[in-house]
Amino acid sequence: MIIALDAMGGDKAPDINVEGAVLAVKQTEDTDVLLVGRQDILNKQLEKLSAKYVFPCNRIRIVNASEVIAMDEHPANAARHKKDSSMAVCCNLVRDGQADAFVSMGNSGAAMATSLLYLKRIDGISRPAISTSFPTISGRCIIVDVGANVDCKPEHLLQFANMGNVYCKNVLGINNPRVAILSIGEEDSKGNELVFEASRLIKNTNLNFIGNIEGGDIPKAKADVVVCDGFVGNVFLKSSEGVAEMIVKIIKNAVTSNPLYWGAVPFLKFAMKGVKRKIDYGEQGGAPLLGVNGACLIGHGKSNAKAVKNAVIFAAKYAKSSVAEKIAREIKEFEQIK
Amino acid sequence: MIIALDAMGGDKAPDINVEGAVLAVKQTEDTDVLLVGRQDILNKQLEKLSAKYVFPCNRIRIVNASEVIAMDEHPANAARHKKDSSMAVCCNLVRDGQADAFVSMGNSGAAMATSLLYLKRIDGISRPAISTSFPTISGRCIIVDVGANVDCKPEHLLQFANMGNVYCKNVLGINNPRVAILSIGEEDSKGNELVFEASRLIKNTNLNFIGNIEGGDIPKAKADVVVCDGFVGNVFLKSSEGVAEMIVKIIKNAVTSNPLYWGAVPFLKFAMKGVKRKIDYGEQGGAPLLGVNGACLIGHGKSNAKAVKNAVIFAAKYAKSSVAEKIAREIKEFEQIK
Repeated sequence: MIIALDAMGGDKAPDINVEGAVLAVKQTEDTDVLLVGRQDILNKQLEKLSAKYVFPCNRIRIVNASEVIAMDEHPANAARHKKDSSMAVCCNLVRDGQADAFVSMGNSGAAMATSLLYLKRIDGISRPAISTSFPTISGRCIIVDVGANVDCKPEHLLQFANMGNVYCKNVLGINNPRVAILSIGEEDSKGNELVFEASRLIKNTNLNFIGNIEGGDIPKAKADVVVCDGFVGNVFLKSSEGVAEMIVKIIKNAVTSNPLYWGAVPFLKFAMKGVKRKIDYGEQGGAPLLGVNGACLIGHGKSNAKAVKNAVIFAAKYAKSSVAEKIAREIKEFEQIK
Repeated sequence: MIIALDAMGGDKAPDINVEGAVLAVKQTEDTDVLLVGRQDILNKQLEKLSAKYVFPCNRIRIVNASEVIAMDEHPANAARHKKDSSMAVCCNLVRDGQADAFVSMGNSGAAMATSLLYLKRIDGISRPAISTSFPTISGRCIIVDVGANVDCKPEHLLQFANMGNVYCKNVLGINNPRVAILSIGEEDSKGNELVFEASRLIKNTNLNFIGNIEGGDIPKAKADVVVCDGFVGNVFLKSSEGVAEMIVKIIKNAVTSNPLYWGAVPFLKFAMKGVKRKIDYGEQGGAPLLGVNGACLIGHGKSNAKAVKNAVIFAAKYAKSSVAEKIAREIKEFEQIK
């Protein structure tokens, strides 16, 4: 697999992106990286890292892109006007079959807009969506959408359900995933207009639809795919991260505040590692943008080298599972049944 | 203070409600309880508890109500038709000045509908809202609305901001509270139509409006009052509870799975107690319904006796701070300035 990595995107670009690429080729045997961005800068950084790491340097290639989209630029404008941005070049590499996936830690709105512009929407999908795999007590749950679309219509949630289903089957390997709508109660009568109407639409498919789910039941692994408006999904995701951090902090404070309890610190550190591994966004590194023609993964702007490495490795797995092609096929079949 | 307690509401009614009332009068000196419900049943339960507890029994009085609203009844219908329900009788006691607050652990939609019907909305408030005080790393944050109103309009969020501000000042004792809107990014450009328009409205008030806040920043204590649509607020609240439970479970599993770490169990238990106290809804026991004429508090259906006790004690504090009267006054002034 060949991954086109937007080397210029993210808060600590390009340094940590280059390092992430190095770590990825070191750790894998079949995942090569195209580092896309300002050739001069990337060359220097790669040389610097040659002193630090032993890695198969023939598996990293630099592809020049003269423009950079900044983290705070207007997404649609940047995508339209910067035709030689690192993001645009990455997308073209995917579109032309020279790369299998595009990964960016940069301006996520711009990464999405650029993907839409160059890779195009899958036929039948009106709104591509960002999906994340959220940790549960026993595994993972796919949540669609977590921020690409605010103010959704019921038919968008139906498409999210179809796409999430394909993603979950092919990447998480779950047969016949349980699909649910995020709402404020399990009963059919609980929700808002969007939930009621989307529920009606999803019931009419052959998806394994289990109805409403409350946010608190997601960590309890009561569903495999949860669909929601991108505003609600994003609030859910960020709140969960914030609460998790708060609890870890409270426990740390409780133990370290009393010298009598200092003996427990090493045990606590061990337990916390498990929590951190479970809730750390960096463990997967990137969230797939479902609904475009091609594998496109968007990561956190504050990613470190390890998160970039994980995103590259996950992108290879994601591309290998051909989710985009399978979504295209299923949506076509779905439209024909209708 | 005299609290009218809906003795028949909640999953474990009336037993735990009666016990909660007993614990409340035991713990306080100036908070009396009117136990409202089926006199015969309540009398028996109260007698049973006399054997278990020593408490000032003259401070608990039973008020008969012949009807009970079940947990799964249709809220509006139940409120309209059951004119002698324990909830209706409670509201009438508050309206007629015989009680200072109404507390229910029952069907929350019905408790709200009954309050609206008998206590009426405050002039100028179109949608009463449920507010909760959410734990933060350094204190508490008032969130309005957490479930009374799904599908809100911008002017509703403006009213939530005004009400939350009064509540926060008078109950949490915070001068000039920082008011924020829950959104998907701090920047003004991040949000949905509701957020953009509500933001414009709140900017034009003399509230200490700090703009958007992300869900993850609420536990970090970046705002004192956060307003949102009741659907979003409810997802936020329940997700946070679910994530907190998951993390506590992961840590427990990590420590207990390895005998080498069993030595840390007592320390962990101590730390967990702090977490539990921080995140336990039962610590406050009830969430005020802001915007009705009178103090009305709604608790969790699965409350235990301790949660009921805390709700009764908190209701006395809430009633003493005259939030409803102060909201009425501020809304009137606000309307005049406009």
